[in-house]
Amino acid sequence: MTRTRSSSEIRDASRREVVRALVVGGTATRTDLARSTGLSAATVSNLVSELREAGLIADAGTDNAGTGRPTTVLRIDGEGGSFLGIDVAETYIRAVVFNAALTEIGAADVDVDEAWSSVDRVADALLSAVDQALDRGGRDRDEILGVGLGLPGIVTREPWGAASPHGWASHIRELEERVRPHLPTPVVTANPLQAVGHSEIWFGTARGRSSAVVVNLGTGVGAGIIVEGRVLRGATSTAGEWGHTVLELDGRTCRCGRSGCVEAYVGVPGIRHTLEEVDAEHDLLRLHQRDFVHGLRDAVDDPAVVETLARTARYLGIALSDIVAVLNPEVLTLTGWTAWALGHALLPDTRAALAERAPELTAARLDLGVSPVRVNSVATGMAVLAFENHLDSRALARRTRPRTAPIVSVNPLPPPPLPQTPQPIAG
Amino acid sequence: MTRTRSSSEIRDASRREVVRALVVGGTATRTDLARSTGLSAATVSNLVSELREAGLIADAGTDNAGTGRPTTVLRIDGEGGSFLGIDVAETYIRAVVFNAALTEIGAADVDVDEAWSSVDRVADALLSAVDQALDRGGRDRDEILGVGLGLPGIVTREPWGAASPHGWASHIRELEERVRPHLPTPVVTANPLQAVGHSEIWFGTARGRSSAVVVNLGTGVGAGIIVEGRVLRGATSTAGEWGHTVLELDGRTCRCGRSGCVEAYVGVPGIRHTLEEVDAEHDLLRLHQRDFVHGLRDAVDDPAVVETLARTARYLGIALSDIVAVLNPEVLTLTGWTAWALGHALLPDTRAALAERAPELTAARLDLGVSPVRVNSVATGMAVLAFENHLDSRALARRTRPRTAPIVSVNPLPPPPLPQTPQPIAG
Repeated sequence: MTRTRSSSEIRDASRREVVRALVVGGTATRTDLARSTGLSAATVSNLVSELREAGLIADAGTDNAGTGRPTTVLRIDGEGGSFLGIDVAETYIRAVVFNAALTEIGAADVDVDEAWSSVDRVADALLSAVDQALDRGGRDRDEILGVGLGLPGIVTREPWGAASPHGWASHIRELEERVRPHLPTPVVTANPLQAVGHSEIWFGTARGRSSAVVVNLGTGVGAGIIVEGRVLRGATSTAGEWGHTVLELDGRTCRCGRSGCVEAYVGVPGIRHTLEEVDAEHDLLRLHQRDFVHGLRDAVDDPAVVETLARTARYLGIALSDIVAVLNPEVLTLTGWTAWALGHALLPDTRAALAERAPELTAARLDLGVSPVRVNSVATGMAVLAFENHLDSRALARRTRPRTAPIVSVNPLPPPPLPQTPQPIAG
Repeated sequence: MTRTRSSSEIRDASRREVVRALVVGGTATRTDLARSTGLSAATVSNLVSELREAGLIADAGTDNAGTGRPTTVLRIDGEGGSFLGIDVAETYIRAVVFNAALTEIGAADVDVDEAWSSVDRVADALLSAVDQALDRGGRDRDEILGVGLGLPGIVTREPWGAASPHGWASHIRELEERVRPHLPTPVVTANPLQAVGHSEIWFGTARGRSSAVVVNLGTGVGAGIIVEGRVLRGATSTAGEWGHTVLELDGRTCRCGRSGCVEAYVGVPGIRHTLEEVDAEHDLLRLHQRDFVHGLRDAVDDPAVVETLARTARYLGIALSDIVAVLNPEVLTLTGWTAWALGHALLPDTRAALAERAPELTAARLDLGVSPVRVNSVATGMAVLAFENHLDSRALARRTRPRTAPIVSVNPLPPPPLPQTPQPIAG
């Protein structure tokens, strides 16, 4: 039944823990790994042997610090394989190649603002981004151990408009079918909300936490939900569509066609709408998406901007309190480019609105802040998902220890494994 | 870390599966149990031996139907112990004694409408309900293997009003401290939303499902959330407070002091508010809570009632779509006395509003209906929780096989184990 886990699932989870500890920590002895994962020394030794055999763990010298004999220090072998993370967003597609230490080694962006009118054009853009990223990373397709393809959920129904009787969801499926045969295998898919959940579990505020919610703020908004240390996918893989929950009955019309959605208040078009209500003639309204948001960030003395940010923070705090009331997480983290730009400005009023609205204890004990994981959090999360998939027992067994000659490394000694610039904002 | 489960936890989960299969199915052979739980024959045999030793499983004859030699048919030994489920609600306290087959053998209700002004009076009412239930069930305190105490969450801030600087939550804690020393041990606590989740997993629509949401409709409203077959408690044990998520920004004032809460529209006072908007002079407005709801149910040709139910169904559908968007469950079940009374009338319009509002696939594949678990679903869920707690390895080991002389049974052959009248409504 649903509640029991088989011993091979437990072993898979333990293997992920060991790899994650090394990816995040850089180096560790077997003793360190046993301590940080909570696994027994024997289990750690078994898993390390298996992962060395698969070419994913290498020696990084010896530790002579203790009183006993020196112990081997381990690290991820960055050259043990590569993973590809792909972020299909509404205005761009980004492909990123990571080595096995999850260090970014090549990336490419392609704009698709206009391309969404045709599945063919989006598919071409996606495959072109992949080729460029592989090229920049100096990797061949057969060195890729897995691909994580992040596909948007119900972000909007509009681009396909009346032209499509089947709506956005069927076009996404069509896109997936079109590109799959041209990608390295295996390919795993998820939506971007689930991807940022994986990023936060490996590199961010959800590390070692049982429950967390990662709220992604941008043009669209949504939430990655982590329960018992795992990202919630849902029955039809669309969990986390918090952006289309209702904030105001019969309120503003959302891009998705519904009314009163959270996204219509705290997504970028929603923030623009609020500024229009405050001052319909405001200069910033002439700017596009990112310039508009950066303009808000830099105009802190402008009364109309101050009022707009105050209203946005209140909307955000109330909308977040809904997810806190339902899920009661330990941690609530804001991420995405709007959060990185405006998080500092929004947090105090957001926190106040949340505290007023959420159930008493939930808000008091909540760890609220902006994610330290920056840049490519969706692509990183998708690569994590591909890596986790690769680490499952059958996938690992399939991979025989490969090359007889050493391969010249593009980055022979990987830098510390965080592919982002950590800039934690105090909760 | 959070993702791995120890072997003793797996064994505990397997033991719960075996007991649950027998409680729900009545009788089964070891082979039946292996099939229905997905456990190996060897594991089932081990667990059955252990549970017989603990006095919880007995023989129920032999099965000669097969071609081989006869096999033993097993059943729960209803006399193997008793459990107490307590439902502390806003207008009443209910205590129910169950035997080990989770058949109700004694129950008592005490009204506390007026008593909430004093923790002492509520504590007295609670302990008096327990004594009556034990008396009616013919059970001594030392036959109780566990108590499940269901305590309200943030249902309302009002009863304690200005008299309490610490608010409702601290009074609930005070109540718990006051009654604990006078209850049989061990006592486990949960909120009523989590309790109905447990009821649905054992006896209702969440059986065998990975994800489900059970929405409780009454004076207050809330949701029991089931993820990966388990009830979500949350970081501070208050997950599921969907009733106090926002439906309308700055909307109706809720009993909790917030504005625009879901509960202010679909809780009983909310439905009353809607009828007032439709017809401020309506006769039904003179009736109290349950009579009011039953009046609505019976006045199906009254245009004001039709309009009120249509609006309520729309509010409910929109509010449910929020939880569907965030959690994307397989099953969404309505329960509680308002759902039992009005579910049939509300479902068509609720379903339509939900389908219009929820993300495309989530609603299409959602199994929506009214729970077949009726009467005492909170008390039943709390007894389930106490039973599950008793079944954990350490608790079971503590219980030596007891009595040397057989005890005369009040209900020597327990009836089929469902303590409720199943009346499923087609999804």
